[in-house]
Amino acid sequence: MSVPVNHPRKASLDVRHRLTEGLGGGIVAPAGLIAHGRGEAFDYLLGERTPVEAARAERAAAALLLAARRPVVCVNGNVAALCPREVVALASAVGAEIEVNLFYRSLGRERRIRRVLMDAGARRVWGVGSRGRTVPGLSSERARADKPTVEADVVLVMLEDGDRTECLRRMGKRVVAVDLNPLSRTARKASLTIVDNVVRALPRMTDYARAMGAWDHGRLKAAYRGFDNKANLRLAESRIRGGFRRRR
Amino acid sequence: MSVPVNHPRKASLDVRHRLTEGLGGGIVAPAGLIAHGRGEAFDYLLGERTPVEAARAERAAAALLLAARRPVVCVNGNVAALCPREVVALASAVGAEIEVNLFYRSLGRERRIRRVLMDAGARRVWGVGSRGRTVPGLSSERARADKPTVEADVVLVMLEDGDRTECLRRMGKRVVAVDLNPLSRTARKASLTIVDNVVRALPRMTDYARAMGAWDHGRLKAAYRGFDNKANLRLAESRIRGGFRRRR
Repeated sequence: MSVPVNHPRKASLDVRHRLTEGLGGGIVAPAGLIAHGRGEAFDYLLGERTPVEAARAERAAAALLLAARRPVVCVNGNVAALCPREVVALASAVGAEIEVNLFYRSLGRERRIRRVLMDAGARRVWGVGSRGRTVPGLSSERARADKPTVEADVVLVMLEDGDRTECLRRMGKRVVAVDLNPLSRTARKASLTIVDNVVRALPRMTDYARAMGAWDHGRLKAAYRGFDNKANLRLAESRIRGGFRRRR
Repeated sequence: MSVPVNHPRKASLDVRHRLTEGLGGGIVAPAGLIAHGRGEAFDYLLGERTPVEAARAERAAAALLLAARRPVVCVNGNVAALCPREVVALASAVGAEIEVNLFYRSLGRERRIRRVLMDAGARRVWGVGSRGRTVPGLSSERARADKPTVEADVVLVMLEDGDRTECLRRMGKRVVAVDLNPLSRTARKASLTIVDNVVRALPRMTDYARAMGAWDHGRLKAAYRGFDNKANLRLAESRIRGGFRRRR
């Protein structure tokens, strides 16, 4: 169904349309639509743009991913539906593997998501079918992991729930999280938290990574070590709190 | 798929499950799941309970609906999936008609929602099939209206978008809105705004209505005239703003 052009929330409804198409195509899980709505509410309070503290986190994350020995980008159904090309571009810019990780898992969904990512230019997509490896401490299907996640030193997660982030940290990994809710467990447990819409965050991270492409390890390290995640997260919180005043 | 019992957000995931079942049953529209997610984010900031200012609005709304000559309760797919019995109980307590009104409309969905409401005890459900009446100013399917909405003096809308509320006001009707986002157009354009989860709001309104059942018109009028909607809405806003501090 098309949305009337004069509807006051046309832009937001069109983005929703991409996700509902993903639902029809077996990429997005029904619960993924609800999770997207939660994010929408926070993005609305953020003014639907990338604030300076998010840009700062995105720059530090690009440096951390570039400096990593074995970075991996974890992809779920919503990310695959919203921005597959942006995922592939970032993974290529930082030299990361791409791995599918689903909460509402089925082999069919894994395969369809791999297809979307391959069509977007990925050379290889991990995490499809049986892998025999796990992230310890998780009881959901999310425990399933493939080689890149198990061996990674830096993991990028987007629109995840917090328990997996915690477990990955306990495995000694650094976790970069993109999450619009600055109060979520994912946001609070990550090593580096980006409070921004993934659709805006990924292209920015890719741009930063390309600009840093020739930097040596020491310079990259300085770029992410100079970043204070706790302080930055507090700024993101007050930004969204302030959103209540500005949107009136 | 069942959610692991030790998952930290089990309660919230179980509510989601009711809506995703509604999706499978052709009651809930895919975009309705996203809208629910938006509400979830605001409810989370509210602490997932009814604050005093919401209870006050619910009491005033019960009085207004009881005092109305022709009240109507408008129902969409999400409301039908979440709380059909609560809708029927309130409509019966205040003597209101029930009318289906859908954004993503099809005759099949209208019929399935009527079935859900009849199974929940409704004697009659309006707004199914062609009606030949409209709410002027709307270009979406939501413009379609049946006799109770066109003739109503007080309309209860829940989880709606704001343009319909505006158009109903322009028709000279009083609109009671239940909406978790205190900044939404629905919330700001309604005559009486309840910032609460509909699942909690309806049973409370029904209780208030039953307690006021024997009141005469003058006493009911005093109960809703003493209610300052603008001031109350500001309280709801600061409550949610404060949610950012409390949930840390």
